[in-house]
Amino acid sequence: MTHSQEARPLGGAGSHTDAAELDSPLLPLADDALVLSHRLGEWAGHAPVLEEELALANIALDLLGQARVLYSELGDEDELAYLREERAFRNCQLVEQPNGDFACTMIRQLYFSAYQELLFGQLAELGNPLAAKAVKETEYHRDHAEHWTLRLGDGTEESHTRAQRATDALWRYTGELFEPLPGPAPVGAVDWGALRAGWTERITRVLRAATLTVPESPQSGAWTAGAGRQGLHTEPFGRMLAEMQHLHRSHPGASW
Amino acid sequence: MTHSQEARPLGGAGSHTDAAELDSPLLPLADDALVLSHRLGEWAGHAPVLEEELALANIALDLLGQARVLYSELGDEDELAYLREERAFRNCQLVEQPNGDFACTMIRQLYFSAYQELLFGQLAELGNPLAAKAVKETEYHRDHAEHWTLRLGDGTEESHTRAQRATDALWRYTGELFEPLPGPAPVGAVDWGALRAGWTERITRVLRAATLTVPESPQSGAWTAGAGRQGLHTEPFGRMLAEMQHLHRSHPGASW
Repeated sequence: MTHSQEARPLGGAGSHTDAAELDSPLLPLADDALVLSHRLGEWAGHAPVLEEELALANIALDLLGQARVLYSELGDEDELAYLREERAFRNCQLVEQPNGDFACTMIRQLYFSAYQELLFGQLAELGNPLAAKAVKETEYHRDHAEHWTLRLGDGTEESHTRAQRATDALWRYTGELFEPLPGPAPVGAVDWGALRAGWTERITRVLRAATLTVPESPQSGAWTAGAGRQGLHTEPFGRMLAEMQHLHRSHPGASW
Repeated sequence: MTHSQEARPLGGAGSHTDAAELDSPLLPLADDALVLSHRLGEWAGHAPVLEEELALANIALDLLGQARVLYSELGDEDELAYLREERAFRNCQLVEQPNGDFACTMIRQLYFSAYQELLFGQLAELGNPLAAKAVKETEYHRDHAEHWTLRLGDGTEESHTRAQRATDALWRYTGELFEPLPGPAPVGAVDWGALRAGWTERITRVLRAATLTVPESPQSGAWTAGAGRQGLHTEPFGRMLAEMQHLHRSHPGASW
């Protein structure tokens, strides 16, 4: 954790992380986990009930752990997290969306955790040992989000309205999830069509059980302007990143 | 988690928590854990490095778990956390102090975790099964804080200055920790003199090893004005509490 040399943006002289590693298909997965972990961390001290405070904190912690493991495969975890510019982050736009109300946070979690569970499931089958542990975590995240989706959707009129609004508003960010991430196996060997089919089947089932209407509007794809996988992010992401990177960047060379 | 009835301040008609339980000596311990957990949660997304982000989140989670277990012994955990007024909180003033810089957070953690470890250690010896698990957690918290105290105190001139400033500034909040909490065993059977002696010995050793000067200024006691154990809190606590309770209180009767 000691930074014996001055902190500098990635790619500058003395960087520990090669530019080639920024092209790794593991980077988007790491960025997804880091960014969503930070969004969930924003609930700390603001959750509606203690049980949920604990659950959100646990999920955030799992995601942070996943991000650290993935970054460590690629280079210096702190350089990757704190010294990249916004355009160098490859997370999908879904995870950077603001928490909004509790329903919005939970639908975001439903969409993302169902994706992550299927993706890590494929990676585990392709022989990635790290993915096997992550699958177990994401199962819990998805269970939790499903439980809340059912409860909110099939709850009061107010909770149903909020859940439907979140379901609709976040839908357009889901297309990007299924854009193939080119690169070496195991990520390069993922069957993205099967992933999309599995996700759609699962989400459709959950939303219907929750008496929510499955959106018919088009999902975005990575070819559309503003795709996170290409480093194009929505406006709230810049603010989140600035906050997240501030302390690290403001003390270059500090040994804490 | 469903609130079938309107939320109302503790003690009102229909409250699940008896006033007698607010006199339990377990309540101050629960409040300590909850409040410090929330303070540490404020670091989420703002820690200097990823490893520390994870460590702080883990410690916050342990403390939140401790608070929930203790509250559940006393009544409805959400009523106790979200529906009490500031004056009904029994946490010591040390844990409510703002995070300040990283050194301040770590010295606060050192002072408190050394106390909590010794206290839970005595409770475990007195036969409290919950305390045994908590002791293991607090050992890690204290180890972590000691590690950082040594590193900061015996680090750069800047880090030493910051650590000494935190050591001095927080010292006056430590006297309150050793005021006996009257009530039934096991808390009522704690040897507070031994606790204070053990704490002082340990903290003195750590501070000296970190090349920090042990403060000579008087420590506060619960008899002094403004003692948290008596429900008298410092100004920043009110703001923290308002934020923490806002969402729960603003949706009385919500089933989330």
